[in-house]
Amino acid sequence: MAPPVSAVGERGLIDRIRRRLPAPPASLVVGIGDDAAVSLPERGSLQVLTTDAMVEGVHFDRRFSSLFDVGYKSLAVNISDVAAMGATPSLALLSLMLPDATTEEDVDRLIEGFVALASPFRITIAGGNITRSPGPLIVDITLTGSVRPRRVLTRGGARPGDGLYVTGTVGAAAAGLGWLRDCAASPESTPEDPGLAECVIRYKRPEPRLRIGALLGRTRTATACMDLSDGLGDAARQLSEMSRAGAKIDADLLPVPPAAASWFATKSPDPIRAAVAGGDDYELLFTVPPRRKRALKAVVSQAKGVSVTCIGQIVKGEGAVLVRQGRAEPLPEGFAHF
Amino acid sequence: MAPPVSAVGERGLIDRIRRRLPAPPASLVVGIGDDAAVSLPERGSLQVLTTDAMVEGVHFDRRFSSLFDVGYKSLAVNISDVAAMGATPSLALLSLMLPDATTEEDVDRLIEGFVALASPFRITIAGGNITRSPGPLIVDITLTGSVRPRRVLTRGGARPGDGLYVTGTVGAAAAGLGWLRDCAASPESTPEDPGLAECVIRYKRPEPRLRIGALLGRTRTATACMDLSDGLGDAARQLSEMSRAGAKIDADLLPVPPAAASWFATKSPDPIRAAVAGGDDYELLFTVPPRRKRALKAVVSQAKGVSVTCIGQIVKGEGAVLVRQGRAEPLPEGFAHF
Repeated sequence: MAPPVSAVGERGLIDRIRRRLPAPPASLVVGIGDDAAVSLPERGSLQVLTTDAMVEGVHFDRRFSSLFDVGYKSLAVNISDVAAMGATPSLALLSLMLPDATTEEDVDRLIEGFVALASPFRITIAGGNITRSPGPLIVDITLTGSVRPRRVLTRGGARPGDGLYVTGTVGAAAAGLGWLRDCAASPESTPEDPGLAECVIRYKRPEPRLRIGALLGRTRTATACMDLSDGLGDAARQLSEMSRAGAKIDADLLPVPPAAASWFATKSPDPIRAAVAGGDDYELLFTVPPRRKRALKAVVSQAKGVSVTCIGQIVKGEGAVLVRQGRAEPLPEGFAHF
Repeated sequence: MAPPVSAVGERGLIDRIRRRLPAPPASLVVGIGDDAAVSLPERGSLQVLTTDAMVEGVHFDRRFSSLFDVGYKSLAVNISDVAAMGATPSLALLSLMLPDATTEEDVDRLIEGFVALASPFRITIAGGNITRSPGPLIVDITLTGSVRPRRVLTRGGARPGDGLYVTGTVGAAAAGLGWLRDCAASPESTPEDPGLAECVIRYKRPEPRLRIGALLGRTRTATACMDLSDGLGDAARQLSEMSRAGAKIDADLLPVPPAAASWFATKSPDPIRAAVAGGDDYELLFTVPPRRKRALKAVVSQAKGVSVTCIGQIVKGEGAVLVRQGRAEPLPEGFAHF
């Protein structure tokens, strides 16, 4: 058993973390260990900034998520926000709040999970902060990125007539979390059904849709975009509100994985509604005008392996609805972190 | 009594906060309410990034710090980091982790404290995150800034022969915190002795040394700089280590406020050591070569009202020491947040 981090101290822990990180690029003028990080900004680009925290007992449960998973996902959810702006990430700040019982090995696993995602996406850890927590373990990440002017994707650009699209699948993460809560004995537990096992992976290690987000912005294919962190229902409502237009989702078009639908069916009288309400799918919801349909086809073929499904339309008026058998019903509330 | 924030929800709370903020400048292309913030970077400047958290039970105690104080100080400690780089702050991200009992009024006070410091320093709140905390109240701030190339002040630039200087006073905040812990019945409590009352203010609402930090960098007066967040002893040791040189502090030169010295004398056999060990003085420690002494004089006269004291020297060799009656002794360990 490694000693608790309280015995190592902040400085010792920072050194330990630094040794586990790849060498920073030359654009990082001052890195970890000074009062602040200093970097050369990307020329001719706008700066993108986002922050998202993972709090033990709210966003993760150590009974079924390893600290590798927590490190990985804490970065994934931030990359997803940058992707939803059509931007490319560059620097991360890592703010850790650690309970007294945290060991050096715990921190190693957290950093390994973080680096496993930072490296392929060329994200540099520029600095951060470490402090004791008298309560839960918390990983709070700030991620910066860059995007060319007039290539930014906001939530507010959708227009009536635009098609409503989603990457990947809807409800997988919520089904995976449901299984973990009900059946997992440890972070290694996995369902026998391979479809449900995939849902568990989607929950624990979401793949941020960075490439397709950047392509949708760069090629000016999408008019609006946001990520599904708090569920499709919540995302559609927000996109519609910010764009001052209505959104209609066709229940028959939703790409709910069969294993997720089966899981929801054992728990809820309305599996479709459960999928639309479920959070933690870090997919992108975006809108494309009819005249840009060919551009979308090109984007999809470039974003290898990421499926895109048309699930409805932006319409005049206001409010986001789910249409089933010709009848419109209000969308379920999103996953609330409160 | 206002309802707890859990009844309002994240979205309602974000709207409430936004209404209490001044209008953002045009350089903020996308502000609060999208997946990420987008801003126009300062042309020809390097980007500065820092993050620092205030955790209830570790960095503040609601028995004697109001939420206004917490909001104010959470920003002050980050501005202090930017000041120590010789930089100018621009955008803040505000990550709040709120226990269930937090009320809307609590959040209002926190934001008021934050804005009270953000406004005079022209800092824009560009975004953030709000989540529930099953434990302490936490305010985690990320602050960006800008600095001209070759005007950056790091911890590593001090050379033997440089004078060692500190702004303001040393030990005031630690004495103020000592009094609060021993004697304060509420956030309104204040000592009768006006000198000690000033120490309490220094602890609760430190004035980040932004103007003098920027001047020291812009005029190339200082060779190294850092802030005193974890005490003078800790800062001198780090500056010496990063500069690969020794640091000698003369105990007789230390600007310890008389009221702080008297307070420490009632608690410790060694008041000077207590002042050097005490954290939370957000003053700057910096080094100036002899040939730049006139430049320093000009900086001090421009940085109206901030006193600067020479407290020692950078020397060949390694290690930071305190010299008393001609004898060198090791510096005390800094304030540990672990």
